[in-house]
Amino acid sequence: MTQLEAAREGELTPVLCGIAEAESLAPETLRSRVARGTVVIPANTNHTNLEPIGIGEGLRIKVNANLGTSSVENDLEGARDRLRVALEAKADTVMDLSSAGDLDAVRRVLLADSPVPFGTVPIYQAAVEAVNRHGDLRAMSADDLFEVIEKHAQDGVDFITVHCGLTRSSLAEVRGGDRLTGVVSRGGTFTACWMLAHDAENPLFEQYDRLLEIARAYDVTLSLGDALRPGCLADGTDRAQVAETVVLGDLVRRARAAGVQSMVEGPGHLPLDQVVANVVLEKQVCDGAPFYVLGPLVTDVAPGYDHLTSAIGGALAGMAGADFLCYVTPAEHLSLPTEEDVREGVIATRIAAHAADIVRLGERAMAWDIEMAKARQALDWPRQFELAIDPARARARYHPGGPGACSMCGQYCVFGLLDEKARPAGR
Amino acid sequence: MTQLEAAREGELTPVLCGIAEAESLAPETLRSRVARGTVVIPANTNHTNLEPIGIGEGLRIKVNANLGTSSVENDLEGARDRLRVALEAKADTVMDLSSAGDLDAVRRVLLADSPVPFGTVPIYQAAVEAVNRHGDLRAMSADDLFEVIEKHAQDGVDFITVHCGLTRSSLAEVRGGDRLTGVVSRGGTFTACWMLAHDAENPLFEQYDRLLEIARAYDVTLSLGDALRPGCLADGTDRAQVAETVVLGDLVRRARAAGVQSMVEGPGHLPLDQVVANVVLEKQVCDGAPFYVLGPLVTDVAPGYDHLTSAIGGALAGMAGADFLCYVTPAEHLSLPTEEDVREGVIATRIAAHAADIVRLGERAMAWDIEMAKARQALDWPRQFELAIDPARARARYHPGGPGACSMCGQYCVFGLLDEKARPAGR
Repeated sequence: MTQLEAAREGELTPVLCGIAEAESLAPETLRSRVARGTVVIPANTNHTNLEPIGIGEGLRIKVNANLGTSSVENDLEGARDRLRVALEAKADTVMDLSSAGDLDAVRRVLLADSPVPFGTVPIYQAAVEAVNRHGDLRAMSADDLFEVIEKHAQDGVDFITVHCGLTRSSLAEVRGGDRLTGVVSRGGTFTACWMLAHDAENPLFEQYDRLLEIARAYDVTLSLGDALRPGCLADGTDRAQVAETVVLGDLVRRARAAGVQSMVEGPGHLPLDQVVANVVLEKQVCDGAPFYVLGPLVTDVAPGYDHLTSAIGGALAGMAGADFLCYVTPAEHLSLPTEEDVREGVIATRIAAHAADIVRLGERAMAWDIEMAKARQALDWPRQFELAIDPARARARYHPGGPGACSMCGQYCVFGLLDEKARPAGR
Repeated sequence: MTQLEAAREGELTPVLCGIAEAESLAPETLRSRVARGTVVIPANTNHTNLEPIGIGEGLRIKVNANLGTSSVENDLEGARDRLRVALEAKADTVMDLSSAGDLDAVRRVLLADSPVPFGTVPIYQAAVEAVNRHGDLRAMSADDLFEVIEKHAQDGVDFITVHCGLTRSSLAEVRGGDRLTGVVSRGGTFTACWMLAHDAENPLFEQYDRLLEIARAYDVTLSLGDALRPGCLADGTDRAQVAETVVLGDLVRRARAAGVQSMVEGPGHLPLDQVVANVVLEKQVCDGAPFYVLGPLVTDVAPGYDHLTSAIGGALAGMAGADFLCYVTPAEHLSLPTEEDVREGVIATRIAAHAADIVRLGERAMAWDIEMAKARQALDWPRQFELAIDPARARARYHPGGPGACSMCGQYCVFGLLDEKARPAGR
């Protein structure tokens, strides 16, 4: 049974109870959300070293880090190092987006290293292997793709991005429209290339039941990819994107009916005033399925700072109801991320998630900020470092500036002059 | 005549026309906003090398960088270097917050280097000089403070932060309340220390007309400081803060009646769902006076990343109507900022301002993003670097990854596979 099926049967499984405790929820509350599909628990029955988490309605917002080898840096040890950094920085999940080396071996090594839910985008492997074998990604067949998916499921992958909502019809909206940046999802682009070359429907849409069968067998959560997400602000919330979202809503219903857990992926690049609208759109059209957003980046002009442009959009999206934020690193649009980029990307995204959680969860999230405020007022530096989201950086950047204070204000430190009741502090 | 008085007389001064052109506004539209006080033009008649700008309703959001010497780093050349970095990074204004050295000399040197509007917080000098002379900031007199203000005005300072809204009554709200971090505004703390020691009303409130007279004589714009801004999320939008805002609203009216330009300062630290409310509050209570916010930081737990926590709050505040963002650097709460921190702080704040401007100004701001999107789709890297908000960083972080692409996706670059109409790109 999948977590969804168990919840529907009314079962309070140990996995569910553990998550309920971690999230300070009554198990029955969480069970009903899993049963309705507004919370997913990505937990492949074959991922033996997994510490399961929940993603969705009323839960702490989760943060994903993308990792893996690339054609430019085919280095498994490098990918493992980045995984280690992501886990140290407290990413809640990771995705292996490898496109170089022995992809089965890479995935198995990274998965074995990963106690957090582990995601993949199977079409990457199908496309890369078609290129390696035939020199052309369009040489892959639908069966190749399903074989890769089956292999990932058997290996214990907890969630897979599948671009099932890219159909002849939604793709036609791009081709007939006036987008500036066309299709920017990599898996979506591979799928579109294949569809155009073969003049055929997307096999993941056409054979969706076959996909559901594999997913159900291993309890793989489907992350329904937004192949047509906007790649720049000007393309935000256009006909193509919305048409695909409508298809995804239908696929969520079909997944639920088959006992398969699913979530929906979202933009991407959006003007600030479209962020909330996109969350409302997804929640309404996709029946409250957990929403997994990439960013959204709220400006296109800041390469080198896209962890920051994403944190702005992610915080707002999270406040409006997005459940799962994919990190964006400072390397986005420029290069493969380094270890430092991975760390920076995870922390920036965790900041956005926490800022939204303060609104979403209230006191449960805010307690952390309250402790920090008290430590700050008391000029208790060790406690401030301990509480900092990145203790090492806070410690490294601190410079003392006289008794109790830092070098920003030195002897004129406000906390040295007055106490929290605006009485002379007498330090 | 001040800019406000000239605008009321119906004059379209060259300064006003220049700003209108830079902002793509009809001069008459801008004039009416200056006349109403919803736009200020901080332009001291003695700041001879100034290139004036406007701040307020319907204008591009402006970004301020704080600079100066400190008791920990009493180094004028260091302060000049940070000023140069701030200007290179395109700060719209700077403030000299020096607290060490010959403060008159420091201010004059920095002001001479500054073609952008230049602000100060005169009480810093009054307090520091009282400490230097008498060993206690409470030894300053009201006359000392007004003498410093007069000197700053004569020197050409374009705007001054004056904490006129801190009154016995608003301070009592802190003393009787349950704040975690009391008073965190440095000037506010100095004022509160003085008021408590002398059991007296705030001289800047009590002798507000004397202040207005000086401001009017040199057309110094008053930046009405929020001495009681929250210093942590838990203190957000509390009675003390709101009581002070109500006082500031009254002081805005009195300034306008006296022909003096004024803006209002705002938080600080706020939960994400209080940011918009704070902008609405200020705009309503202070009759649309330009709103100058510090952050707001949307979580307290991220020392080392407060440029980012502020960019989140600043973008949202800007979208809601805040007009002027004070930068926050990664050093906030930890140390005096380095040159690199200054650069990072200015860029982060400009990103927040631009993300908000896209909503606020529409096509006028978005044109930049559209150009970037086109360059990205075309894989035109030189053009992407040229358009980047930080060209040097974008160029430095770029790593080529095969024909046309970067090392993120290499040969699998989406823009190398399909064009913007989702046709095979044929690169």
